[in-house]
Amino acid sequence: MPKLYIGNKNYSSWSLRPWVLMRQAGIPFEEVVARFDSFDPDSQFKATLAGVSPTGKVPVLVDGDLTVWDTLAIAEYLAEQYPDKYLWPQEAKARAVARSACAEMHSGFAALRGACPMNIEADLAQAGALLWRDRPAVRADVARLVQLWSELLERHGGPMLMGKFTIVDAFYAPVCMRLSRYGLPVPAHIAAYIQRVEALPAMQEWIAAAKAEQDFREFEEPYRLKR
Amino acid sequence: MPKLYIGNKNYSSWSLRPWVLMRQAGIPFEEVVARFDSFDPDSQFKATLAGVSPTGKVPVLVDGDLTVWDTLAIAEYLAEQYPDKYLWPQEAKARAVARSACAEMHSGFAALRGACPMNIEADLAQAGALLWRDRPAVRADVARLVQLWSELLERHGGPMLMGKFTIVDAFYAPVCMRLSRYGLPVPAHIAAYIQRVEALPAMQEWIAAAKAEQDFREFEEPYRLKR
Ligand SMILES: N[C@@H](CCC(=O)N[C@@H](CS)C(=O)NCC(=O)O)C(=O)O
Ligand SMILES: N[C@@H](CCC(=O)N[C@@H](CS)C(=O)NCC(=O)O)C(=O)O
Repeated sequence: MPKLYIGNKNYSSWSLRPWVLMRQAGIPFEEVVARFDSFDPDSQFKATLAGVSPTGKVPVLVDGDLTVWDTLAIAEYLAEQYPDKYLWPQEAKARAVARSACAEMHSGFAALRGACPMNIEADLAQAGALLWRDRPAVRADVARLVQLWSELLERHGGPMLMGKFTIVDAFYAPVCMRLSRYGLPVPAHIAAYIQRVEALPAMQEWIAAAKAEQDFREFEEPYRLKR
Repeated sequence: MPKLYIGNKNYSSWSLRPWVLMRQAGIPFEEVVARFDSFDPDSQFKATLAGVSPTGKVPVLVDGDLTVWDTLAIAEYLAEQYPDKYLWPQEAKARAVARSACAEMHSGFAALRGACPMNIEADLAQAGALLWRDRPAVRADVARLVQLWSELLERHGGPMLMGKFTIVDAFYAPVCMRLSRYGLPVPAHIAAYIQRVEALPAMQEWIAAAKAEQDFREFEEPYRLKR
């Protein structure tokens, strides 16, 4: 059974993607949590990943003697290994669009990601309102998300971005968590999509585990002094 | 024939990737250059991309009624459309490693990318020496590149990262241009790989066109006052 190394469920947006993908698709895996203490070379986190992750980052998928060390590559590997799960859309053009959307997420939305680190247990509506007021780049990122998701939901008819649940929804799941926890304003049909993502059984499981963690790491907490 | 929209050959690192991939693999395409004037909403650049690129960025591949708007998604689309070109390694595990390397590039190396924008015609050795002295994060990015490339070259025996030319070399081609133009110190076997990339016929063609452009855009020139 492949091993998926992840970070804290409350904080680790990159980890959420392959985890929710595998769980929601019913792909069996063993979970190894490398809990964040710090990202210093002598941290417990780095010690757990030593000899496992060539970048010292999570997520990493270890399948026998193969190490896949980046979220998008993990998703592609799983799509190849489990063709019957249809992790990508079946139609070639829809697949190219789906991959564009994921790759855009993978390298983009820097303002939103920088300003709004994922923090599932927290209510950060006040911080979100200030960011919304003061950061045009955050507003621009959200505007692009609304445009992209609206187009995909309309083209494929929902409920997920490509119709059925695919890698694209897994890739945008951490963004859904951010938009909701920071209370960033979005149109009703986008809020409804965010709620559908949050309601997925695999997301419910992840969120419950995130809330149970109860760690507080200052380097992930630009807006709170304590839990 | 698909249309590939790109930016300036001298400056646009993202554009270089799919262009050199297609040219080196012998995949026919029509090139459309959206020359950088500025990235303002009323720029000529944005006007050229209006109705073409949903993100207002290059590269974009337009194939009939399909738009693929991100480098990595373009590479995956081409790999599917031209299976006989073996743009990815044929073996599943090698492919997963290749994709990890590309995805790591796609979302990583922020310090190197930020500090050393691609500028093919320029000799930026002085700027490079100062960056090397003062920026640990740039040195760390280069150390990770050296580690990754060394491992791949050793495992596959060269001359390219996965043995033969693949998407991975196309993805790291702009990094080769940076390391060489900024004169960043690398071990001899890495310098030799960089030279092999630069010597690829498709790279030679791109570099010649980059040198012929002779544009000077201040927003791409943190280290020069003029050409
Ligand atoms: N592009 C990588 C990013 C992974 C990443 O940055 N993970 C964070 C946790 S969410 C990490 O491990 N950080 C540790 C560090 O930066 O030292 C991926 O997709 O897997
Ligand atoms: N992740 C995108 C990035 C593309 C990108 O940032 N392109 C730059 C030129 S190298 C651009 O078009 N910038 C215009 C802008 O930022 O407005 C991709 O892989 O295609």
